[in-house]
Formats: sequence, C-alpha cells, structure tokens
Amino acid sequence: MNKKKIVTIGGGTGSFTLLSGLKNYQYDIGAIITMADDGGSTGKLRDELGVLPPGDIRQCLVALSDASDEWRALMNYRFSAQGGQGSGWDSGLDGHNFGNLLLSALEKINGGFSQGLKEAVKILNVYGEVIPVSTDDMRLTIKLNNGKILAGEKELDDNEDVREVGIHKVQLSKRVCANKKAIEKIKKANFIIIGPGDHYGSIMPNLLVGGIKNAIKTSKARVIFVAPLTNKKGQTQNFDVGDYIVSIEELIGKGRIDFVVYNSKKPHKSMIEKYEKQEGKNSLVVCNKKGNRKYKIVSGDLLRKEKITKINGDKLAHTRAFIRHDSDKLARAIALITEYNEYKSFTIL
Amino acid sequence: MNKKKIVTIGGGTGSFTLLSGLKNYQYDIGAIITMADDGGSTGKLRDELGVLPPGDIRQCLVALSDASDEWRALMNYRFSAQGGQGSGWDSGLDGHNFGNLLLSALEKINGGFSQGLKEAVKILNVYGEVIPVSTDDMRLTIKLNNGKILAGEKELDDNEDVREVGIHKVQLSKRVCANKKAIEKIKKANFIIIGPGDHYGSIMPNLLVGGIKNAIKTSKARVIFVAPLTNKKGQTQNFDVGDYIVSIEELIGKGRIDFVVYNSKKPHKSMIEKYEKQEGKNSLVVCNKKGNRKYKIVSGDLLRKEKITKINGDKLAHTRAFIRHDSDKLARAIALITEYNEYKSFTIL
Repeated sequence: MNKKKIVTIGGGTGSFTLLSGLKNYQYDIGAIITMADDGGSTGKLRDELGVLPPGDIRQCLVALSDASDEWRALMNYRFSAQGGQGSGWDSGLDGHNFGNLLLSALEKINGGFSQGLKEAVKILNVYGEVIPVSTDDMRLTIKLNNGKILAGEKELDDNEDVREVGIHKVQLSKRVCANKKAIEKIKKANFIIIGPGDHYGSIMPNLLVGGIKNAIKTSKARVIFVAPLTNKKGQTQNFDVGDYIVSIEELIGKGRIDFVVYNSKKPHKSMIEKYEKQEGKNSLVVCNKKGNRKYKIVSGDLLRKEKITKINGDKLAHTRAFIRHDSDKLARAIALITEYNEYKSFTIL
Repeated sequence: MNKKKIVTIGGGTGSFTLLSGLKNYQYDIGAIITMADDGGSTGKLRDELGVLPPGDIRQCLVALSDASDEWRALMNYRFSAQGGQGSGWDSGLDGHNFGNLLLSALEKINGGFSQGLKEAVKILNVYGEVIPVSTDDMRLTIKLNNGKILAGEKELDDNEDVREVGIHKVQLSKRVCANKKAIEKIKKANFIIIGPGDHYGSIMPNLLVGGIKNAIKTSKARVIFVAPLTNKKGQTQNFDVGDYIVSIEELIGKGRIDFVVYNSKKPHKSMIEKYEKQEGKNSLVVCNKKGNRKYKIVSGDLLRKEKITKINGDKLAHTRAFIRHDSDKLARAIALITEYNEYKSFTIL
C-alpha cells in the first residue's frame, strides 16, 4: 500500500508538536517550514554569520528525528552564561541554541543551507523530508493599523506597538522564490495541513512566498487547517476560527480549506487566567459556526496536559504559549480524517 | 597477541599529529591531554560558561576519530562573523570553534566534563582513550626572569614581556589532582611518549599535575621524548635537545627518558627564514650530543612536506608553528622503537 502523502506548513513549536505526533503513523511526510524568523538565537546568527534562520528547521528536525536522547538534548540545549546577570544578546554565547549553531556550521561548511540540511538529516536520522519554504533571504514587514511599518518578524513579540495598535497586514520585504521541493510536495500531496502555529509568525510567511499559494490552489490535496488554541493581543485579538480562515483563504482561495481541526475542550481555569492576564480577555479561540461555511469541523479535546517547563536560558520564554496542543491527540484527529477519507464534520471523543 | 600499551602526554597540534599517525598501528592508546589552556575560543568558553577547556581534547578526539569527513570538518570549523571587521573576542560567535562548543554543551548536558567526553567519544567513533590530565580547574602561572608573574597559559602567546624578558619557570596556580585514569594508564603502559608539543604550553602543565610525575617515575614503561622542531623566543630560546630533557627530568627524575626522537632534517631555507624572523636566530632545535647522556637517540627526517594552510577565522594563527612533524614519519619512528624493543640509538633512513 502506498503511504499517504502529507505536507505540513508552519514553523516553530506548532510544527514540532504536529510532526512529533504524525511520525508515529505511516505517512510520507514533507514538512514545509517558514524561514522568516529573525529573533533570538536565530536572529543573531542571521545578522552575525549571514546564514539562513535555523531555529524553525531545527525544531522540526528534532520532531522527526530517530536519533538518541543525547542528540535530542543537544539539539535543544541553550548555552547560558555563568553568573547570568542577564548580559543579554550582546555578549558571546549566552542564549544561543546548540542545534542552531550546528545547522549554521553545516550551512557554512557545505556551501548552502539545503546542502547543510542534508547532512543534519543524516546525523539526526530524520524520518520524512524537512523543507525550508525558501532559501532566499526572507524578511517579514509588518504594517500596523496606524500605518507604521515594522521590519522583521521579531517585532511581533518585541515591539509594544504591535500589542497597542494592532496589525493591519504582514508582507515579505521583497519577493522570494519558493523552494522547488516545496512546490513539488504540495502538488503531489494527498493532504496539506496548515498549522498549528503563530498566524503572523509561522503560517502567513509561508503562504506569502511566491508560488506557494498557487501550488495549494491547484493541488488536488485536501487542505486541513489546524486552528490555534489562543489569540495574541494586537495580532489576532478576538479572532474566531472563521477569522483565521478568512485571512488564510484570502491567499489560497476562498473555500479552499476542507477541514478545520479545532480544540473544543476548555483549558483549566488557572491556565486561562494566566493567559488572559498576558493577552487580554477572550483570548481562547472559539468556533462560532455561523455563515455559509464550506469546511468541515473536526473537534474534540486536543489539549496537552503536562505543564510546559521553561528551558533554562530561553530568552524568548515569555513569548511561548503555555496552552498547547497534544501531539498524539492532534495526530489522531488527522489520522481520522485521512483514514476515513469522508468529507464530513465529526467530533472526537 | 596483546597490543602494546602506549600513553601519550601532551596537547594541541603536537598530540594531534602524533595520534593521527599512531592510530594506524595496532596500539592500545591512551592520550593524556593538558587542561591548562585558557586562550582563544577555549578561554572564552571557560570564562563565560564555566566549563573545562575543550580545545586540546577536541584536537585529540579528531585525531583518533573514525567518523565521517563531515564530522571532522564540523569539529574543526570556526565561526567567522560576516564583514569580519575584526570585532575580536568581545562579540558573539566570531572565532569560536564548533567542536569546542559541542564539548562544552555535552559537559553541561551530562553534568561533567568526563561524562560529556564519553558521549563525544561515541558520536565521533573514537579509537583509543582520551584522558584529560585533570578535571580540576587548572591554570598556569608564569614566572618571568624579572620576577614578574603572569596568570594564565594564554599569556605565553599574548604577552610581549614573555618574548622580551623570558620565562624563569611555570607552575600551576594551585595544586590540582590527576585524573585517576591517567595514573592507571601510565602505570600499566609499555611506552610513555612525552611530546611533541609546546614546552610550557602543553608538556610542562601535564607533568606539574599532582601524581603524574611520580606515576612516570615508578612506571616500568620506557619513556620516549619527542623533541620539538623549533624553539620559541623568550620561552625556549636557544634550547637544544639536552635543555628540554633537563627541564623535563627535573620533574620526572634524572635519567628517566630512555629515547629521544629527533628530527635531523633541515627544513627548507625559506621556512627557516620565515620562522627566524618571528622567533629569532637559532630557533631550530639541534641535538648537541655532548655530556654523559643516558638516553638513546632516534633521528631522521620527521618533517611534514605540505605547507600548513591557515584556517579561516583562526585568531591564533600567528601563534601556530608552520614547521611541523609529519604524522606518518613520526609514527614510524615510534614503531621502530616499540617493535625492535632494543635499547639503542639509530637513524631512520
């Protein structure tokens, strides 16, 4: 039996979570990953060494890796200066991620990001294919509601204006070409999974890359959108599932999304309170099933139970979500869609 | 047939060269490596992360590794900031060696240098045993001829006073304990090879570690000293082979050295000129066979023919020798001693 071909589109923790679950099923996986990150360890490496952003790719490699626990620990290890008086990003290794350094060194040694990635795939014994959405130098431009323009994806988390004024639109600073492999994979896929992930940080940058949205439009694949669990202040404030879909379908075509995978289980009250303190009221994503929606809804408990522990030295910890999808539950929801292959809404028990 | 047990004592490029040759012979190799380095990438890691010095160990691991070329390239890769306006060690990754970062990350993840080293040995498929001479925090103190005291091995290369005034003596800043494994290996060895290596930077620090010199004194092993090719201004200026031996035997006991392996071939005139421009006249090490020497001399052409190419981003390039031993010639000289097992001088053709 031929394996079903699944393409995931995203980046960061969202793709990590999804892929960690999917790899336990018999899929032919191609993971398309955003290359717009320019914050934290990744941003420093881009600026300082002139490499492509390794951070999102790294997480994805770890998710699909069959390497030893030692290797997984290494890939996620963050250097932390002794004393740790918060000297910040200006000095040395503090806050750098070892896996990012490995990918950057491999890029330099092998004369290109894709060539370096091939070696990383060997070292980490990676299942499936990890595909940078583009190997051009890709930067995000953020237009705020007051007309102000911010340069770089890192501004999403770093710039207080985003939270106060709100985002009007994101674009790429210049046209970049899609990785040919990404286009091929999308064309041949049986299923395309968009998300989960940060809407402006992980999802939209992929769809803005030249060629990607048209490939999705013309592919015969079913498109599955995994809705995020929470909204972000100033970015997706008060969005419901339909708002995310409108935003995405503006690019890939109205009605293109076939399934929406949506968490209907409420997180614990204390988690919600903690989250709303940070991101404002009504920051849980809900699904108001209004309007003439074409897509089918697959809903149920998709929440991860364990508490997320902060990684030592992680300078972006404050930006990371602590209400998260569960890898296995998410993969099971996807499997139900791909196995039954019926076009209908259902609830997972 | 039992393999002959060889223990090497040194560090840096000298040990790298020797071990790269020895690994092609059927020896049971234990490489004891100095842990006093505090300059360059290694020094920054010690200061910033509070790790033990990885640099000398790294070179030795690479020498004994059966890993792929990709891995060898990675271990030796040095990050180089784009633009490269010589921002120096104060900023970011510039000049850091990837292999050093790997060893430091493994030390941190595994809770100790020796535990991290075990994992590195697995990753790099290392033949033989690599033994840090001590896992205590080990620092060199340099006493100059004018009474001035310098702290740290890096001063050997960085401090102009060393070149101008000259070294009276080196010591450790405080007593450190030898690695138990180092003592065991020395006790059980058939041959102990001291050098080749920087006299004050690589050889003496090992012999100053508590327990090492007594282990050598009482071991039944034959002791082989590989004489350096060149002297260093202010450090071993005008030394001949006998002077090195006097200095070493002050610690391990007079008459303890059984064989001296010595290069009798003159380097090309242009190389000598280049070297003497840097280190002063008479900087080639010669062997004046005067006095009642007990040791036997094994001499011949031990020179490496290829020109040493500078590694991009190597901030210590100016301190590295460019007249070097040849791995294979050196290993063959050692093999002649260990195989014939006769106690006599001879010349290698």
